[in-house]
Amino acid sequence: VKRNVSSLAVFGGEPVFTKPFPVGQNNLVAWERFETAFRGIFSRRYYTNHGPLLQELETRLSAFFGVRNVVCMTNATISLMIAAKALGLQGKVVVPALTFPATVQSLMWAGLEPVFCDIDRGLHLITPALAEPLLDNTISAILGVHLWGNGCDPEGFEKLARERGLRLYFDAAHAFGCVHNGNRLGRFGDMEIFSFNADNIVNAAEGGCVCTDDDGLAEVLRNMRSSYGIRKQVPIPLTGNGRMSEAQAALALMSLEDYPLNSALNKERFDRYMSLLASLPGIRFILPAPGDKSNYQNALVEIDADEFGLSRDKLVRVMAAENALGRHSLALGLHRCQPFRTRFPQYFDALPSTDMVCSIVMPLPCGQQVTLDDISSICSLLGSIHENAAPIRDRFGGVQ
Amino acid sequence: VKRNVSSLAVFGGEPVFTKPFPVGQNNLVAWERFETAFRGIFSRRYYTNHGPLLQELETRLSAFFGVRNVVCMTNATISLMIAAKALGLQGKVVVPALTFPATVQSLMWAGLEPVFCDIDRGLHLITPALAEPLLDNTISAILGVHLWGNGCDPEGFEKLARERGLRLYFDAAHAFGCVHNGNRLGRFGDMEIFSFNADNIVNAAEGGCVCTDDDGLAEVLRNMRSSYGIRKQVPIPLTGNGRMSEAQAALALMSLEDYPLNSALNKERFDRYMSLLASLPGIRFILPAPGDKSNYQNALVEIDADEFGLSRDKLVRVMAAENALGRHSLALGLHRCQPFRTRFPQYFDALPSTDMVCSIVMPLPCGQQVTLDDISSICSLLGSIHENAAPIRDRFGGVQ
Repeated sequence: VKRNVSSLAVFGGEPVFTKPFPVGQNNLVAWERFETAFRGIFSRRYYTNHGPLLQELETRLSAFFGVRNVVCMTNATISLMIAAKALGLQGKVVVPALTFPATVQSLMWAGLEPVFCDIDRGLHLITPALAEPLLDNTISAILGVHLWGNGCDPEGFEKLARERGLRLYFDAAHAFGCVHNGNRLGRFGDMEIFSFNADNIVNAAEGGCVCTDDDGLAEVLRNMRSSYGIRKQVPIPLTGNGRMSEAQAALALMSLEDYPLNSALNKERFDRYMSLLASLPGIRFILPAPGDKSNYQNALVEIDADEFGLSRDKLVRVMAAENALGRHSLALGLHRCQPFRTRFPQYFDALPSTDMVCSIVMPLPCGQQVTLDDISSICSLLGSIHENAAPIRDRFGGVQ
Repeated sequence: VKRNVSSLAVFGGEPVFTKPFPVGQNNLVAWERFETAFRGIFSRRYYTNHGPLLQELETRLSAFFGVRNVVCMTNATISLMIAAKALGLQGKVVVPALTFPATVQSLMWAGLEPVFCDIDRGLHLITPALAEPLLDNTISAILGVHLWGNGCDPEGFEKLARERGLRLYFDAAHAFGCVHNGNRLGRFGDMEIFSFNADNIVNAAEGGCVCTDDDGLAEVLRNMRSSYGIRKQVPIPLTGNGRMSEAQAALALMSLEDYPLNSALNKERFDRYMSLLASLPGIRFILPAPGDKSNYQNALVEIDADEFGLSRDKLVRVMAAENALGRHSLALGLHRCQPFRTRFPQYFDALPSTDMVCSIVMPLPCGQQVTLDDISSICSLLGSIHENAAPIRDRFGGVQ
């Protein structure tokens, strides 16, 4: 435990951790299971394009989500791009700015224009009430994003989309396994898109999938992904190479088996953070709604500068120097990032809650590679920083 | 050897091979090398996004091609899409219709319109002479495609592009390692794009790369691929998830080491086909130009129906029933395939050489999994079919 300010790494002390924690989950299976799966691929000599493991993965995911169709692709970005084209969207799409760039980039690739919607301050999600005033006749769809284990009000958006005759789909990249109002995310709207990037709880190194109960839409997606694995030929606007390799499918299958274990490990870590930080003022966790289930793949807190004694920006500087910070890429809403900032300047000052949230959130390290002892050290460090907030502020020049 | 017509599988006999040969090359390394590489990835716990193996791969490919920049991506389609956007193209792009769908689909994703150019009957490639009449002020680029081990006249197209102020790039998906006029393909035009799909001689299951001597363009490509691995931030039109995983990079590195061996094995098979079929009338091989080097990853022949005694279509039916056919997807020019056929009907009857070539080519099985004994059987079979061409024609109803 660092008891005095000079021992903080930001002021020249030794950092608590020798190197930064990895981004996100980064879970991988034991070598023995990997070897068995990959010897199978080698013996079959079938490496990609709707192979037997891909087909097994789609069947298992379908059962897991309780959805009629799962179409796996090489990553979530191409899945989102193909999804937008498969829906035949035109014009503009309502989307949050608090999301990963791929969400909005997928619209640009599909020739669509984003209409950025502000978020609810509590859960960081767009809401039907915030989206409704944006709906004019140039809007063809709403692309919701589930964040921090919470569903982006799928029932509310389904109602709104139905009333207004809009398509609705969800970027569920971070929401694998999450349960909303008793239903697993994956069956809402026209489609939901998941990611199996290594940062996520189900990890194929890279990978993604589109879930839909609409069989016609699923067939369009399969026809667009590649000529292999289609059930019948249907008219499509274009194809994209969405092929997932057998190697990716093998990893995803093993990672799916590990989902109960890895989500439990995540929850154990999250709960540890919550209990150790419960008495520390100025730190608020973003929690799943009562009754809902998160995969706890992110441990995000909001920092109240007045209560904690130090602004988020200063705290992040101190924590980063100790290598005690989690990492994610939501430092700014996309409306303030290029190329959107230049192309759509009308949103720069139009999303006050998004800007506010981006100025106060801090990610804590999480995933298998963060031990409970690491979490104790991180929480002690935060306690020590809070106790020393005044002298730290002085060292930074007196401001929070 | 099948000496009588009734023993042909198409007429009820046992097929020569119990199952079809795999598509393309499908080479993979020995398990021991794979295990070593993958244990390394597991011990580093770094699975994707500009990892150490990706960086090593780009360095080695750069040396191999003799090009300043190699930017690896998850597949060749996304590479082509990002390439088109990186060039800032507008309007229309001249492209052959005798190519794989991804070539032209990449243009559609980039919001561009294809202008289909007919091909030279000898090498099946578009030529500057055929392209020049198509160049009006709506054309912003030419996208050439190298086929069957031959370069798509890169010097001629460089001259034409320079004279007309057009961008020029090449789909080199099938041309890894090929040498044209003493230069390895990969350095021509503004960019060349290669594929590491399992069907190709260098195999990462899925994968691709963009090669360019233009450092500015390379930086745009890196910025578009992902935020990892950029050298400096530069303005870009949009991003796409082009990340190549460490697993893909590991496979590509090993496959690159094997390139000399695998190209020699391909050439041995190609030469065997040529020598065994030398005296058979009506079969013409598509050869590399004198002095050039092919990777021999395809063994394509043209069938002269009059000389051989049977049309390509009939021969393909007979060979397919014997499981003795190679597989590729160029049965029709793209101008006659959906969605292009409906969207650009003006080309339907405008490409006579493309249509002619598509009606007479036949792929022979190739790759490591085709043994020299298999090739002897295939050539004997072809000889027997030729000898029995008249009775086969009769069984089919008298027409070639």
